[in-house]
Formats: sequence, C-alpha cells, structure tokens
Amino acid sequence: MLKVGINGYGTIGKRVADAVAAQPDMTVCGVAKASPDFGADGAVRRGYPLYSARDDRVNAFREAGYELAGTSDDLIAESEVVVDAAPGGIGAENLPRYEAAGVPAIVQGKESDDLVETSFNARANFEDAEGADAVRVVSCNTTGLSRLVAPLEENYGVEKVRATLVRRGGDPDQTGRGPINDILPDPIAVPSHHGPDVNTIFPELSIDTMGLKVPATLMHMHSLNIELGSDPSSEELRELLGGESRVFVVGDDFSIDGTGKLREFARDRGRPRGDLWENCVWGESITVKDSELYMFQAIHQESDVIPENVDAIRAMTGLADKEESMRITDEALGIGL
Amino acid sequence: MLKVGINGYGTIGKRVADAVAAQPDMTVCGVAKASPDFGADGAVRRGYPLYSARDDRVNAFREAGYELAGTSDDLIAESEVVVDAAPGGIGAENLPRYEAAGVPAIVQGKESDDLVETSFNARANFEDAEGADAVRVVSCNTTGLSRLVAPLEENYGVEKVRATLVRRGGDPDQTGRGPINDILPDPIAVPSHHGPDVNTIFPELSIDTMGLKVPATLMHMHSLNIELGSDPSSEELRELLGGESRVFVVGDDFSIDGTGKLREFARDRGRPRGDLWENCVWGESITVKDSELYMFQAIHQESDVIPENVDAIRAMTGLADKEESMRITDEALGIGL
Amino acid sequence: MLKVGINGYGTIGKRVADAVAAQPDMTVCGVAKASPDFGADGAVRRGYPLYSARDDRVNAFREAGYELAGTSDDLIAESEVVVDAAPGGIGAENLPRYEAAGVPAIVQGKESDDLVETSFNARANFEDAEGADAVRVVSCNTTGLSRLVAPLEENYGVEKVRATLVRRGGDPDQTGRGPINDILPDPIAVPSHHGPDVNTIFPELSIDTMGLKVPATLMHMHSLNIELGSDPSSEELRELLGGESRVFVVGDDFSIDGTGKLREFARDRGRPRGDLWENCVWGESITVKDSELYMFQAIHQESDVIPENVDAIRAMTGLADKEESMRITDEALGIGL
Amino acid sequence: MLKVGINGYGTIGKRVADAVAAQPDMTVCGVAKASPDFGADGAVRRGYPLYSARDDRVNAFREAGYELAGTSDDLIAESEVVVDAAPGGIGAENLPRYEAAGVPAIVQGKESDDLVETSFNARANFEDAEGADAVRVVSCNTTGLSRLVAPLEENYGVEKVRATLVRRGGDPDQTGRGPINDILPDPIAVPSHHGPDVNTIFPELSIDTMGLKVPATLMHMHSLNIELGSDPSSEELRELLGGESRVFVVGDDFSIDGTGKLREFARDRGRPRGDLWENCVWGESITVKDSELYMFQAIHQESDVIPENVDAIRAMTGLADKEESMRITDEALGIGL
Ligand SMILES: NC(=O)c1ccc[n+]([C@@H]2O[C@H](COP(=O)([O-])OP(=O)(O)OC[C@H]3O[C@@H](n4cnc5c(N)ncnc54)[C@H](O)[C@@H]3O)[C@@H](O)[C@H]2O)c1
Ligand SMILES: NC(=O)c1ccc[n+]([C@@H]2O[C@H](COP(=O)([O-])OP(=O)(O)OC[C@H]3O[C@@H](n4cnc5c(N)ncnc54)[C@H](O)[C@@H]3O)[C@@H](O)[C@H]2O)c1
Ligand SMILES: NC(=O)c1ccc[n+]([C@@H]2O[C@H](COP(=O)([O-])OP(=O)(O)OC[C@H]3O[C@@H](n4cnc5c(N)ncnc54)[C@H](O)[C@@H]3O)[C@@H](O)[C@H]2O)c1
Ligand SMILES: NC(=O)c1ccc[n+]([C@@H]2O[C@H](COP(=O)([O-])OP(=O)(O)OC[C@H]3O[C@@H](n4cnc5c(N)ncnc54)[C@H](O)[C@@H]3O)[C@@H](O)[C@H]2O)c1
Repeated sequence: MLKVGINGYGTIGKRVADAVAAQPDMTVCGVAKASPDFGADGAVRRGYPLYSARDDRVNAFREAGYELAGTSDDLIAESEVVVDAAPGGIGAENLPRYEAAGVPAIVQGKESDDLVETSFNARANFEDAEGADAVRVVSCNTTGLSRLVAPLEENYGVEKVRATLVRRGGDPDQTGRGPINDILPDPIAVPSHHGPDVNTIFPELSIDTMGLKVPATLMHMHSLNIELGSDPSSEELRELLGGESRVFVVGDDFSIDGTGKLREFARDRGRPRGDLWENCVWGESITVKDSELYMFQAIHQESDVIPENVDAIRAMTGLADKEESMRITDEALGIGL
Repeated sequence: MLKVGINGYGTIGKRVADAVAAQPDMTVCGVAKASPDFGADGAVRRGYPLYSARDDRVNAFREAGYELAGTSDDLIAESEVVVDAAPGGIGAENLPRYEAAGVPAIVQGKESDDLVETSFNARANFEDAEGADAVRVVSCNTTGLSRLVAPLEENYGVEKVRATLVRRGGDPDQTGRGPINDILPDPIAVPSHHGPDVNTIFPELSIDTMGLKVPATLMHMHSLNIELGSDPSSEELRELLGGESRVFVVGDDFSIDGTGKLREFARDRGRPRGDLWENCVWGESITVKDSELYMFQAIHQESDVIPENVDAIRAMTGLADKEESMRITDEALGIGL
Repeated sequence: MLKVGINGYGTIGKRVADAVAAQPDMTVCGVAKASPDFGADGAVRRGYPLYSARDDRVNAFREAGYELAGTSDDLIAESEVVVDAAPGGIGAENLPRYEAAGVPAIVQGKESDDLVETSFNARANFEDAEGADAVRVVSCNTTGLSRLVAPLEENYGVEKVRATLVRRGGDPDQTGRGPINDILPDPIAVPSHHGPDVNTIFPELSIDTMGLKVPATLMHMHSLNIELGSDPSSEELRELLGGESRVFVVGDDFSIDGTGKLREFARDRGRPRGDLWENCVWGESITVKDSELYMFQAIHQESDVIPENVDAIRAMTGLADKEESMRITDEALGIGL
Repeated sequence: MLKVGINGYGTIGKRVADAVAAQPDMTVCGVAKASPDFGADGAVRRGYPLYSARDDRVNAFREAGYELAGTSDDLIAESEVVVDAAPGGIGAENLPRYEAAGVPAIVQGKESDDLVETSFNARANFEDAEGADAVRVVSCNTTGLSRLVAPLEENYGVEKVRATLVRRGGDPDQTGRGPINDILPDPIAVPSHHGPDVNTIFPELSIDTMGLKVPATLMHMHSLNIELGSDPSSEELRELLGGESRVFVVGDDFSIDGTGKLREFARDRGRPRGDLWENCVWGESITVKDSELYMFQAIHQESDVIPENVDAIRAMTGLADKEESMRITDEALGIGL
C-alpha cells in the first residue's frame, strides 16, 4: 500500500483523501490543514492522521481539542507521495520542500506549469508523468476540456477549439466570494489564459478561450465550438462521447435543465458529497454542422480533478499503466453514469 | 414489515422513501411519480416499484423505457400506509381516495389542518396521532419551530415567540423560482400565516411570525426572540438544546458562518444528499437576557420533516410509542450530530 | 406632431413612451396598461393619458383612484401609430385590431416575423420599414447583434458569427423569475433560435448562437467570435466600433469589470433609469487574430430596443430618412457615450 | 455659499456631492478620489474640481488624462467643511488632518462614535451637532432605525425595539462581494452591534438587533417589533409614519412586493440613480397588537444617509436650524414620495 500524504485539506484535498482511501493500492498516511475548523473534525472522523499545515497553528489545533500527528514536515517525512492541495500559490512554495525530502509530489492547477516536469490529464497524457517527481494536475476547466479534446483528436483531428467558459463565482462554502448580481468578463482580455493552459496538455492545439464569471456556485458551464478534421454525424459524436468513462452524456428523457438538477441527480445516485467527477455533456446539445461541433458541458469544479490526482499518483510511482490505473480509479470510485 | 406507499416522489417523497427503507420495521412497497424524468431512474435504481401518479402519463413512462407496477390506485391498494408527498394542494385532493381505500395516510404541510385528524410533530405531539387515519406533518418551518418550543415550554414555559423567517426562494433543483436579486416581505401582511401553523401543534402558544424570501436555495434561517417563563442562563439553554436529538448546536470552533458551510459540513459527514434533518442552532447566538432568548437557527427545508413522517407512520399504526419511535428513527438514519 | 399610442406600459412600453415624448416630431397620445399598479401612477405623473388595456379592468383602475381616458380601443382610435409593448404573444393578437383600425403598428421581438412586413433594426435595415404598416422591432439580443454585424459587414464582410448569449434570468422587477443559483443552457438544443432571428435582419448571414441563462438581472452578455472577410487590426476594429453612435466602447481606464459597474456608470451619467441604449463593448476585449474577431459586449435588455422603436415610427410614417431619424433620436435621448 | 469639500468620492461621496450641489446655500469646492476610474470621469463631467486622495496616485490620474486641482491636503485647505466618505477606517485616520487644518468635518457610520463630538441623525438629534467640529453621520441601518424611533418615542414612548436586519451583501458595483447563495447570520453573536449604534442617537433606548447577510444588492430589509408605551391603532401608526418627510409608506395599490419593484418605482419617478432617500415602509405590514408594532421597512443603503450629511453640514456651521435645514434639504432634493 502506497502511503499518500495530503498537504492541504480543503475542497480538493478532502476529496483526494477520500478517493485515495477508496483505492486498493494506496492509503492516506495523513492530512495537513491550516486551521482547526469543521474540516479538521471531518478528517478525524474519517480516521486520517491530522497534521498542522503551519507550525504556528499547532496551538490553535490543541486548544480546539485536536490531537496532532505532527506538522506538515512530519507528514512529508511519512509519505511516499504527497498530493499538495494548499491554496493556489502555496503549492509552488512547497515544491522545494518535497524535493528536499525526496518525495514525489503533485500540485494543483493554479501552480505554474514551469515548476513541474509535466502537467497531467489521465486521458490525454498519462505517460508523460510516468516516473516524474513533480507533476501538476491541470485545473478543473482544463481537465474538462482535455477529456473532450483527446477522443476528438484521436478520431477526427481537431482544427480549432473556441470555448466560452461561464465560470461559477465561488464554491458553495466560499461565502466571501461574489459576484451577487453580475456577469463579468473575466479576464476581459481575449483570448483568456485558459487556452494556453490546455496547451500544456495539447501543445499543438489551436484553441481560443473566453472567460466569464457569474453568480452561481454549483458548476462551470462550457459553451463549445470545435472544428473537426472530418464531418461525423451528431449521433456518432454522441456515441463517441458516451463511450468515454469520464464523460457523462445527459439523456434527453432525464429533463435535466442545468447544473442544479445535475447535482440533484448526483445526490440521488448517492454520490459522496453529490460529486460529479465526469464532464456532463447535454446529449441534446451535441450538434455537428459542416465539421463544426457545438455543445454544452458542465464541469463540477470541486471534483472533476479528483480521479486525475489518483491516476497521477500511479503514473509517477509506476503502480499501474494508463488503462489499468483509470480502470481501477473508476471502479473504486464508481465513475461512469 | 409495514408496507408504506409513497404517492409523490419529488424532493420530499424520495427522502421519505429512503428513510422508510432504512427502518427495521417498515418497507417501501412502491412510489408514484407524475413524470418519467431522472427521478424515475433514481427510484428504479433503488429498487422501489414505480407507479404512475397520473393515469394519463402511463404511456409517457412506457415511452421513456420504464416498466410500471401500476398507477397510484394500485399503489394505494398495495399499501398499509400512504405518505402523500404530491405538490401542495394535491394531497388534499388525494385524501378522499385514501379514505375510500381504507388506508391511513399522511399529507404534508401545505395541506390544510382542517382535513386531517391532527397536525403532527414527533417531539411535540406524537400521541395526538396515535391511531389516526389522516395526519398532516407540519411544514419545514413549523417543524423547526416546534422542536424548539417543546423543550422550552417544558422547562421554562414560553410567554411569547417572535420569529422572522428568512426563507429560501426555491430548492436547488427548482430553476424556475426566484427572486434573483431581491429581498421580499412574503407575505407583506404581518403576522404571517406561519404563526397560526405552529398553533396547530401548540394551540395556546402566543406567537407572531414575519416571513421574508431571499435568493438562496440551501436552507431557511430563523431569527428568533422568545420570552420565557423564567430566566435561565445562556449556557443552560445551550445545554438544553444540545440535549435534543433533533437539534444540532453548531460549535464555535467549527467556523460555520452560514448555510453554505452547514451543508458542506453535512456532506463531509457523509449525510445522504448532504441532508440536515436537525434544526441547526448557532451555539454562539444563543443569548438569554432578562428571560428573553435570542438565537439563529437554520432549517433544511428539504429534509427536516423526513424523520417526522417516519414517526407519524408509527404513531398512526401503533408500531411504537413516542420515545421508541424517535429512537429507532434517529438510529436508523444516523440523526444526532 | 405625430400622435403615438403605447399599448402595454411595462418595462419596454414606459421607456418607449418617454423616448417618444422626448422627440421633437412626435407626442404620446396615451398609454394602455392592464393593471393599476405603481406603473399607472408613473404614467399619470408624466402626464400620459391612461387607458385600460383590458375592458374587464376598467373598474380596477377606477377603484384604485385612476381616471381613465378609455380602453385600448379608444387609444387605437386616437393614435396615428401604435407601439405595442404588451407581453409576448399578445402583440400578435393585437395586430388584427390595429389593421382593422387602419393604424400602422410596431410589435416587439417576441412576436413572429411572419406577422409583419419586416423585422427592423435602424442601423441595418431602416429602409425596409419605410411605408410599412406592421413592423417588428427585433429582440434586445438581436438588436445588439445587428448593430455589430452591420458595420462589420459593410467594412470587411462577415463569413460567420458564433455567439454565446449569456442571458439575464429576469428584469430587476421580475421577482418571480429565476434561476437563483444555476447556469442553464437555454435552449439546450444548439444552435439556438437567436441566430435565425438575426437572419430576419441579415437573411444571408451565417450565424450560430448558443443561449444560456444565469442568475443576474442587469444585462445580457455576449461572448462573440466573428470570422471577417479581411484581416483588420484590433485597433482598427476598436475605432470602427467606437465610431458607431449606438455602440459604446468601454475604455480601459474606466475599470469597468462587468454589468454592475456599467449600470453604475450609466446612473452616474444621469441616464434616465440608468439605461444603456448602446451596445457596451469592452475595448480591451476586441481582438482580431487571423481575420477572426473576438469580443465581449453587454446588452441592456430593458433599453437597447428603445431608440429602434422611435426610428421605426419614422420609417413607417416617412417622418425622416435613416440618417436623419437616427440623428434626431440620438440627440433627443442623449445617445453616445 | 459654504464651500464643501468631499474627501472620498465613491458610493456615498458622489451622492453627497450631488446633494450639496443641489442646495441653495452651499457649493462643492472639490472632490478627492483615490483612483482614476469611471468615477473620476463622472466628477469632471459634473464640474467638480478633482483632487487626488492619495499623494502617490497623482501620476496615475495624470496618465489617465485627468487634470488635478491638487491633493486632498489642498482640498482640505480649500474647504469650509469637509465631508469624509473614504472607505471605513480611513475617516478616523483623516480626522486629525481636518482638526489640524481647523476645518469642521463629517465622517460616516463605519467610524467610531468616540472620535467625534456627536453621532448624528437630523430627525432625532440635529441640535447635538450645532457648532460641533467633528460629527459622524450614523450608518444606513441606524439612520433608518432612528427615523422610526424618533416619532414613535415622541408620540407613544418606546419600551423596546427588536430588529432583524436582513442586509444586502454588497452594493451593485461591488463585484467582489458575496455571498452568492447563502444566508449568513452576521454577526453570529446576538445582539449585534447595530443596537448599540442606535444608542449613540438614543442613549436610553432598549434595543436588541440581529444581523443577517443575503445575496442581494438593492436594499436592506428590516423586520421590526417595537413595544410602544401606549396602544395606538395600526391606522394611526400608518398616518403618523406617512406624515414623516423621510419615511415613505408604500401604498397597497402599488403592488410593490420587494426591493426590486421599489427601486423600479424610484427609477420611474426620475430619481437620480434611482435613489430612495426615504425609509420605505410597507403600509400593509404596519400592525399594532397589544401595544406591539410589527412592520417591514426597506432601506436604500447607498442613499438614505445623503440628506443627513447635508443637514449635518448646516447644524455644524449654523446655516440653519433643524426644521429649516430639513425643509431646504428635502425641497432641494425632492424628498417626499
Ligand atoms: N475549488 C476548486 O474549485 C478547485 C478546482 C480545481 C483546482 N483547485 C486548486 O486546488 C488547490 C486547492 O484549492 P481548494 O479549493 O481545495 O482550496 P481550499 O481553500 O478549500 O483548501 C485549502 C486547504 O489548504 C490548507 N492550507 C492553507 N495554508 C496551507 C499551507 N501553507 N500548507 C498546506 N495547506 C495549507 C487549508 O487549511 C485548506 O485545508 C488550489 O490550487 C486551487 O486552485 C481548486
Ligand atoms: N420542498 C420543500 O422544501 C418542502 C418542505 C416541506 C414540505 N413540503 C411539502 O411537501 C409536498 C411535496 O413537495 P416537494 O417539494 O417534494 O414537491 P416536488 O415538486 O419536488 O415533488 C412532487 C412530486 O409529486 C409528483 N406528483 C405530481 N402530481 C402528482 C399527483 N397528482 N399525485 C401524486 N404525485 C404527483 C411529482 O411527480 C413529484 O414527484 C408539498 O406539499 C410541499 O409543500 C416541501
Ligand atoms: N423586458 C425585456 O427585457 C424586453 C426586451 C426586449 C423586448 N421585450 C419584449 O417587449 C414586450 C413587452 O415586454 P415587457 O418586458 O415590457 O413586459 P412587461 O410585462 O414589463 O409589460 C407588459 C405591459 O403590457 C400590459 N399588458 C398586459 N396585457 C395587455 C394587453 N392585453 N394589452 C395591452 N397591454 C397589456 C401590462 O399591463 C404591462 O404594462 C414583450 O414582447 C417582450 O418580449 C422585452
Ligand atoms: N455603501 C454603503 O452602502 C454605505 C452606506 C452608509 C455608509 N457607508 C460608509 O460610507 C463610507 C464610504 O463608503 P462607500 O460605500 O462610499 O465606499 P466606496 O468604496 O464606494 O468609496 C470610497 C471612496 O474613497 C476613496 N478613497 C480611497 N482611499 C481614500 C483615502 N485615503 N482618502 C480619501 N478617499 C479615499 C475612493 O477612491 C472612493 O472614491 C464608509 O465609511 C462606509 O462605511 C457606506
């Protein structure tokens, strides 16, 4: 059992921990948090050894009644791999610590691609991470785009991607984030940085992205136009995407009209935290006209990168190859709708 | 095993079904829905026999590929008790059908108190429903208020309740409901109908309520002022409420600042659908000054009435008495935080 | 002075009335409303003769203390032109009444193009409405798109338009409309009906649109990709659009990050109701790459069609030609930022 | 003409400037801003001499093309009175500068009452500010409460105020503020600091307040319970409040169901920026039962303190006494609905 430490136990970290714990070939050797809030209580209840992410917070944990297994340095020493899920920017600061300790590490999408050996998406470039010591799992939006581009590229070639990313303003527990009643071009400059991020996975891809932010918390929404190298039918496309394990093609009969009902569907299915690890593509929206594909997909920002983190662990440590890793991950989590 | 039929399988009905299925002494003999959307898929996956709530929709279910066990008339015939969770107003229409079939039935809070033998809240008036054939589980807000009033009344006496109910505009999957950016007195007339609804449980209680509606979907929020018959300390109050199984006193260390983090906490705890069956009272807000209690509590509109429906079934059929029923329900669901 | 009657005095109608009243060559001979709410009070205060839009509401107006000038039939008889701004669908029902009375009439964008002689956008096809008896001012979104396409078409040719329309869920006073916390593909089918609506103005244009709905009330947002027939620089494009009187190119120094600050800007400028009759294009977003233009524009749904209604009146009645009419309208209202 | 300088030209400052400019006995000698955004453009267009609020921003203004009249030190030197409307906390820092320059100054509600000679509400304690050199206009919520308490106190005596303040999360242009989909007790501790703030105006008043924050931008909403010293009828109360110039009793016939329609009403009335300087009390909600008054009022956070700032200027400088000042202010602005 590979010992995995999780440094940063918030939205992403707690989900990575649960996903690792669900795998047959790895175990959570500890999680590090910066403050003793209800998340710390959750970690303890799940039986994860609790570490203080910051040395100056040890007392705060003690006062709140938590027994600590140590600080993040101890956690790193304990781990065979570290998944860093600290707030954006802190992963970059932590990388030298992992390197110094000789522990392979994964950082999240907000960190720069320059700091790691490769950016990672299991479906698209698993092999690039094999044996690597520092890997970055791309952001939720880039993960969602990569899972689409990979099969399209393989089957038809992709001439150009034009994507409008209508992004949620904050996660459901981020009470301080807005906007309340606004639609914001974000960034205003076009194309946005999201396209170049996809290029860390598909260096040759021609992609232009435009970003927006809206007052919603549940999921991002992608409005997509993709020029293909050939002209398949809409039905063929629907079938192709339906065959991808990490893409869920929303059926017309389901009467799911947006992200609210999608998450309700996930809750009804008993998904932990109502998570949707898969890209959610409206089948009815898939339309090919003169080799141009149009479609809508919703991306659950809190969870779509979770299986990717698990697969990255296997790629880096050689626990399994791409097909086997994705199969094990999907089976352990119950991915596939 | 008591056979319970659920007529109306939406927000409330699907939760009642799962709660009934979790009990040791009852079983779901079927659920009836009006349309073959993703909810129908969910019912089938959970193994609940599926009925068409409306005769004219049988074909729609067939075309969507569902095998029906019959229509709601068949479901009623099959059931030893029916829980009606159809949209507000339809329960009233259905009551004569249940009576004609000789099946005891529970309706939800939107229906009128006049139509049933008693309105019901387990903590407050379980005994009134014993042996009854038609019972109404009071609304989510009234349930939340009743759970507070009962222990306060028993321990100190309640002179007067003044409550401002800041209500969510719609449930997370109700995409058509607003408001988007508004605060609405609703109703404008004061006091609102919520007070008289609490009087269906506590006929003598002096209570004035004011209702508001805001653009949020997760929970209602009650801002409360309660004049007590004596003058306990805030700490005593906190302990009293902490001892109630269906009240969760939010700890100060948890850093839970509102309904978003509350539901996140529930998801972290692995609660099905992230539900919070308990009143959620901020411990820090509990304040007694000159016999007047002030406090905030959040009420999860989708789920707080669920354990009450289960207990009402036992009260009506004599399966258990109050203490035993509440204990079994709480244990089976995992109530108590 | 041309006598203009306004049938339907809500969001659109009251603005058309004020715009007509501001023109030197026309006057408001009356406005018709269906209910005696605060809008009726507003009409009276502005000195517009008040009519009941529905015969069965005459008493309701009386009881609320309003003196009526008559019903909508009287208003039609009184008018030389009618602008119909009744709720969508009612304009279609009213058209035969206008025809029977021999009064030229304008309906709004929700009505079908089939029912009128021409759909209308002043910048794009003023001439088509000259002398017509029934004209339809296209919807707010189509108006916004037409004002862009016209100059682009004239200067470079337009090969293809791909537009994602991120639409506000409701107007600020529409408290019943949602969604509260969602992003909805609307319609889910792609391309949406908005493209064909633009084709009522530009029949030959190749345009694909995708529609979304979000919890915001202030403006729509368009995320645009336009393939041009030649390859101008971004600066040239910015200048071209800056030269259009009904397009406002938002300056970079203004630090306007979305629709909230845009409307604040309009309020600061003293605009009536904080209206923005112009397309609001972020200058910083205007980007041309290999003959493809990308840009964001915000559209104030409540007001961008107002100057178009005024110009349509002149086109139909021959009061002025295109250049003169647009100039008079712009000057009278203060259009141009 | 009294020369008034405005230090801080944001939501409050720009409105104070326009209100001062509208008075017959004072003039705006300049406004100071910290950044050259669209607000600066607005100041210039209105003819207000523009100053840089911060010395280190002078170049930023120059680069954006603005001609400055100087920095805030120059503005202070130029002014006979300064109204400080800088962000909360900065007013406190600025007070010694005003004192050093010998210029009487007004700060806003976020600053501490300890720093000034008196807190101020025109209706309640105009006289306390007569001749003072440093005055604090109380916050929007406290202003709203004071305007109610004053006439109630005078006519019936007030035994106790219990208020739930449902506050907007941010102003319409504050895109960074949340929450998006939440209801937050804010502060969680009860009673909130709002009550003691009212006590800076009514030191003897018994008042308990509870604060909440919701995803809305237009207005705050107060849910009120007030124990009176006698037992007037609801009608009498309605009349009393209707007679207050800075209270607007919303008529039942207006069909105004919340803050969206209230602001729409203000826009229809041609109010600058759609402002509502008055407390907006729903007439239908005014209910007296056994000497207890219940009611809802909406408070326009951006504008209700504006007339108060104007009156404070007159009180401090002796330009007029209370009745005369309020009359002039109301007439100049058009207060009274
Ligand atoms: N939330 C999303 O939607 C999302 C999606 C994809 C990727 N990401 C990325 O994942 C990373 C984590 O984001 P999140 O949303 O989970 O953040 P979060 O704020 O929910 O959680 C961050 C966690 O890190 C801890 N922490 C704080 N300082 C730390 C430190 N110095 N060392 C270690 N841990 C520390 C905090 O206690 C908290 O547990 C970020 O890089 C983010 O960009 C987030
Ligand atoms: N949602 C809440 O927050 C909430 C809280 C407490 C009580 N309630 C009450 O519970 C009841 C159900 O509300 P809900 O939110 O679950 O509604 P819902 O709309 O989510 O579900 C209603 C269900 O009834 C079915 N239905 C429609 N017509 C029917 C008919 N003629 N016969 C039987 N079933 C029919 C629908 O298919 C759907 O499955 C209402 O009375 C409501 O007032 C709702
Ligand atoms: N609101 C927008 O954003 C917007 C934008 C562009 C176009 N439109 C279109 O303009 C039209 C009017 O929309 P609106 O938003 O102003 O609606 P609204 O609901 O604000 O106003 C409608 C008005 O029509 C009146 N009315 C109701 N029944 C009537 C009848 N039988 N005859 C005459 N009047 C009647 C109502 O009293 C009200 O005054 C619609 O076709 C709509 O699609 C609306
Ligand atoms: N916005 C409201 O709803 C509201 C209501 C009542 C009272 N207030 C109070 O009014 C004050 C101003 O609030 P606001 O909402 O207008 O803020 P704002 O952020 O809209 O405006 C602040 C202004 O101050 C300027 N500024 C920044 N630093 C400055 C400095 N060092 N010196 C002078 N000016 C500086 C900014 O450029 C800006 O023009 C605060 O104390 C606030 O608490 C605000």
